[in-house]
Amino acid sequence: MEKHYVGVDLGGTNLRCAVVDGDHTVVSRHQCPTNAAEGSDAVIDRLVEGIRDVVKQAGLSASDIAAACVGMPGPINQRTGVVYSATNMPGWDNVPLAHIMTERSGIVSFLENDANCAGWGEFTAGAGKGSQNMVMVTIGTGIGGAIIIDGRLILGRDGTAGELGHLCVVDGGRPCGCGARGCVEAYASASSVARRFQDLLREGWTSSLSAKGAEVTSRDIFQAATAGDPVALRVVESTGYYLGILCASLAEALNPDRCVVSGGMIEAGEELFAAIRKTCNNHNRHPAVRTMEILPAALGANAGLVGAANCARERLERPL
Amino acid sequence: MEKHYVGVDLGGTNLRCAVVDGDHTVVSRHQCPTNAAEGSDAVIDRLVEGIRDVVKQAGLSASDIAAACVGMPGPINQRTGVVYSATNMPGWDNVPLAHIMTERSGIVSFLENDANCAGWGEFTAGAGKGSQNMVMVTIGTGIGGAIIIDGRLILGRDGTAGELGHLCVVDGGRPCGCGARGCVEAYASASSVARRFQDLLREGWTSSLSAKGAEVTSRDIFQAATAGDPVALRVVESTGYYLGILCASLAEALNPDRCVVSGGMIEAGEELFAAIRKTCNNHNRHPAVRTMEILPAALGANAGLVGAANCARERLERPL
Repeated sequence: MEKHYVGVDLGGTNLRCAVVDGDHTVVSRHQCPTNAAEGSDAVIDRLVEGIRDVVKQAGLSASDIAAACVGMPGPINQRTGVVYSATNMPGWDNVPLAHIMTERSGIVSFLENDANCAGWGEFTAGAGKGSQNMVMVTIGTGIGGAIIIDGRLILGRDGTAGELGHLCVVDGGRPCGCGARGCVEAYASASSVARRFQDLLREGWTSSLSAKGAEVTSRDIFQAATAGDPVALRVVESTGYYLGILCASLAEALNPDRCVVSGGMIEAGEELFAAIRKTCNNHNRHPAVRTMEILPAALGANAGLVGAANCARERLERPL
Repeated sequence: MEKHYVGVDLGGTNLRCAVVDGDHTVVSRHQCPTNAAEGSDAVIDRLVEGIRDVVKQAGLSASDIAAACVGMPGPINQRTGVVYSATNMPGWDNVPLAHIMTERSGIVSFLENDANCAGWGEFTAGAGKGSQNMVMVTIGTGIGGAIIIDGRLILGRDGTAGELGHLCVVDGGRPCGCGARGCVEAYASASSVARRFQDLLREGWTSSLSAKGAEVTSRDIFQAATAGDPVALRVVESTGYYLGILCASLAEALNPDRCVVSGGMIEAGEELFAAIRKTCNNHNRHPAVRTMEILPAALGANAGLVGAANCARERLERPL
């Protein structure tokens, strides 16, 4: 019988599970609120229940599942399967989650951070498929990422490699949530885009979005840019510029085949990607900035789930 | 009999060869001017002669040498062993050097770029020994580097990974030789340090080095800083600052155990390293910037030779 894997995407708001087959197809899925405030024990009960449900929906039993992987915000230790703590989720101090899940679900379980799962999903089944060296830049409230070299996820000393949002691009620039200044996240994350837009309004620019006041989201801004709003266009272009600088730095340092950009902002489409590519391709005379393809992520919201399932497979086949 | 390897460090000025044993000890060495202007055929003759000489000096014959590796400025292709071209050396267009050297020396020969050889030398036998994930930042006329992840050199799509001098740290900042602006190389390479010092003199600062005019080197500046010269101190501190920003970015992205800094400038010692560590360690709240050790290179001028020999061994044991 063909091997199946379980992928789990454990976020602060929703908990999602899926059974994924060897061709990266989602066979069954389960979603429920995480209710993170109830603490780790309650959430673990929901994880076990969710996995049981997707396996049953798929017409399988636990023994048909080769392995499972939980993708979640860290910091976590992939090697030991311990969650050190979880952003926006209380009560996750040093929880040996991989061990607990293996015991309770009867399925060999692994642990990976959510950005790495999404990156691995795109690499194995999405926009990175067929490449050997890929970086993923994930743009949400913050900017995260994943690095794959010679077909393997880079973890680093403590499993935190791939934090691409805190490369400094503007010495002494805008304050970043990390405590530093001038990180690319402080310019190009969804929340930074909204903040930079508000700054322009305060400087006296007028936009079709002016009436919305402080409620303007990055999505509004990208939509307004498509409709030709000059302030929004300015922000989208500068966002592409800062992301292009990040891409050029990654191309220089890592010489990857592809850079995959993911997150809600990529719906902005060609407007944003043209600006990213223009900056990166023209950055300097080194070929690495031009040979790297810059592509939008292809799996959308499935990247984390499929990536977690494919991570389970990878860990089984090539243990850390 | 114990295995021996030949390392070659082919630079624009000097050609150096060594026989290195399995404990990273240089058994014999050969050095001569490259005379690069004579073109690749003449240089290859000198390479063959140099290898023959070190093997003989070591009391060995070609059949006692397990493998050889030529480290040289690129771009080169490690996988095919072809030199695409060589900075500051005319006549190296698409030369299949690894193949030629294997044929002519009777020793299986590999090719690697010089920065990677030096990084591999420090990783296997110097300041990176015992780590699993190491970045090396090499400061000379420019800034180069090497990245080692999980015990392997990162090459990237075309073998150019590890170009760490062109990470952008100051958006729109000083022009860099690469054509971009604000690269760390434009602030912290030996030549940039000298240029920034001259800029301060032009701004009206007076230094103990003022009389030397345009001849001031980065070495002079670091020496003057040790002696308390305020302008030199200012330049050394800002150099440490920019290198610290680079180190923090590398720590975030790659989460390495160690960052090894090499090049003549490290003779400045604690003055420079204190400034680098201060900036990097305090960069933000992420642990990766503090867990990464920042160390001076340990092998000095031997790094390239020992690294090339150890690269030969690595390529034999773990082919690309």
